[in-house]
Amino acid sequence: MSLVIAGGAGFIGSKLAEHFLAHGYHVLILDNLCRGKMEYIERLSPQDKLEFFNVDLSDAASTLVQMLTFHQKHPIETVWHMAANSDIPAGIADATVDLKDTFLTTFSLLQAMKSLDIRNLAFASSSAIYGDKGDDTPLHEEIGPLLPISNYGAMKLASEALISAASTWLNHAWIFRFPNVVGVPATHGVILDFVRKLKINPSTLQVLGNGTQQKAYLHVDALVKAMLFIVERSKKNINLYNIGPDDLGCSVKNIAEETVARVRPGAQIVYGMEPRGWVGDVPKFIYSTDRLKALGWTAQQSSVEAVKQAVDEIACQEGV
Amino acid sequence: MSLVIAGGAGFIGSKLAEHFLAHGYHVLILDNLCRGKMEYIERLSPQDKLEFFNVDLSDAASTLVQMLTFHQKHPIETVWHMAANSDIPAGIADATVDLKDTFLTTFSLLQAMKSLDIRNLAFASSSAIYGDKGDDTPLHEEIGPLLPISNYGAMKLASEALISAASTWLNHAWIFRFPNVVGVPATHGVILDFVRKLKINPSTLQVLGNGTQQKAYLHVDALVKAMLFIVERSKKNINLYNIGPDDLGCSVKNIAEETVARVRPGAQIVYGMEPRGWVGDVPKFIYSTDRLKALGWTAQQSSVEAVKQAVDEIACQEGV
Repeated sequence: MSLVIAGGAGFIGSKLAEHFLAHGYHVLILDNLCRGKMEYIERLSPQDKLEFFNVDLSDAASTLVQMLTFHQKHPIETVWHMAANSDIPAGIADATVDLKDTFLTTFSLLQAMKSLDIRNLAFASSSAIYGDKGDDTPLHEEIGPLLPISNYGAMKLASEALISAASTWLNHAWIFRFPNVVGVPATHGVILDFVRKLKINPSTLQVLGNGTQQKAYLHVDALVKAMLFIVERSKKNINLYNIGPDDLGCSVKNIAEETVARVRPGAQIVYGMEPRGWVGDVPKFIYSTDRLKALGWTAQQSSVEAVKQAVDEIACQEGV
Repeated sequence: MSLVIAGGAGFIGSKLAEHFLAHGYHVLILDNLCRGKMEYIERLSPQDKLEFFNVDLSDAASTLVQMLTFHQKHPIETVWHMAANSDIPAGIADATVDLKDTFLTTFSLLQAMKSLDIRNLAFASSSAIYGDKGDDTPLHEEIGPLLPISNYGAMKLASEALISAASTWLNHAWIFRFPNVVGVPATHGVILDFVRKLKINPSTLQVLGNGTQQKAYLHVDALVKAMLFIVERSKKNINLYNIGPDDLGCSVKNIAEETVARVRPGAQIVYGMEPRGWVGDVPKFIYSTDRLKALGWTAQQSSVEAVKQAVDEIACQEGV
């Protein structure tokens, strides 16, 4: 049993690698270490079942070479594609970031898979593909039009489209549309930002946006369980699932208060004026997980509970 | 009044150029002449209001340079992006064709537009973004999931996603989802294939697929009118419209019979066994144009009438 984790040095990818190594798989991690870290790979075990290559996955030729070498020793059953630019504002400032790291990674991996006749792909898509409906429409898998408002969301949707076109030769494609995912090892995201800001300025927490942004949050451990559950139970050609908690989400105000209470009790929270944190931020969405519930999986934690756990974990990670 | 037509040497782009030149616009045509032809540009008039550059639009730097030079003389109001690989089977055989010509063209144009502060984009998308629903669901603009089955459809959807993300700085984006478009100058498509096959083999017409494929067809002249109508009347930030005839379409069998009757009466038609013409072909779809009708535009010709007219025009083009 053998697989590839693209982006396996990152937040979610390294958690997946931990799971598969613990279950006896041979794992090939491909990562450019832009956002992922070598230390996340070094702490994985057993190391003798793990191979890692620092590779730019937007380079189709390099991707193919690395996969081929591993595939000849350990025939790859499934590619888990978790590689992406996770910094949404960075991708809005420079569209080539998401083109390269979020989209061309998908293109290269599919090209290599086709060449090597690897026919199963699990892909980390995003709730960002839905864009900003601007109302209380629950976002479920059947709605349209899909009008993302960030290059990140656009390149995730573009990747979904490419995977869909590849379904003519793939056995199974699992497309997971992630909510906001929290936990450790944290490499980005609102909680990490808040913790770091409070370390620099212990008296005041400046919040982007007016704090009313409300979104679905899931802990990374639950996310990994959900992905594995879906891959186990859903065996269609294309398997498309929103993954998220079973609630209406958690506000940024709640996250700010939770972080202050844990990290710097008594610090003042200062909010911005805008309803969204930055251009490309979807301030509020209701995430439907009915399809996943129908398959038999429901999150045990609420968004608020997931945030609370992650605040504590990230505070520890950052040494506070 | 000044604009850019990307893909302006092609089938639809050259028709648009004809219209805008006749109405006094300065027109810059950018085209790589892969599928477009120099003769389509040479026959346009007045030539003194027209500039043409042979440029690879997937190259962002070259695209910007050509647009900048023109923009300094004639400030560009709108970019009409009609450039794409129109050979769907070619894009399935080699995914880089659609990556480059259908998607990276969109990426480059948007990058150049952002640099030059050009805020209006009209884009040729496609019914192929809907994929193969496999039932009689009418394809309207609000349905999902969008699961294209060709790289062409995938890269059109990817382009839509990118344009949607750019809506944060665009004034207006018009996204036209085209049906099958027929007429002259024909560069590709089923009618041209049939005419050319009958010229080579006047006694027998071999048809890919069993002839039952049924799709919506629109004449290019009607398509151009519909696009201009939408741009005139619909002024939202993102304006997304299916364009098509007001009927259930025309079968490949009908097209084959029409072409034989016009080109080589009495030739035998031999059908394949498969319900689809090739991998990535959507054999049957019902195209909803309710949104366009609500805006006030309805096609005057049926699919069958559009095909009949195009068969005659393409036969003439091919000298039969």
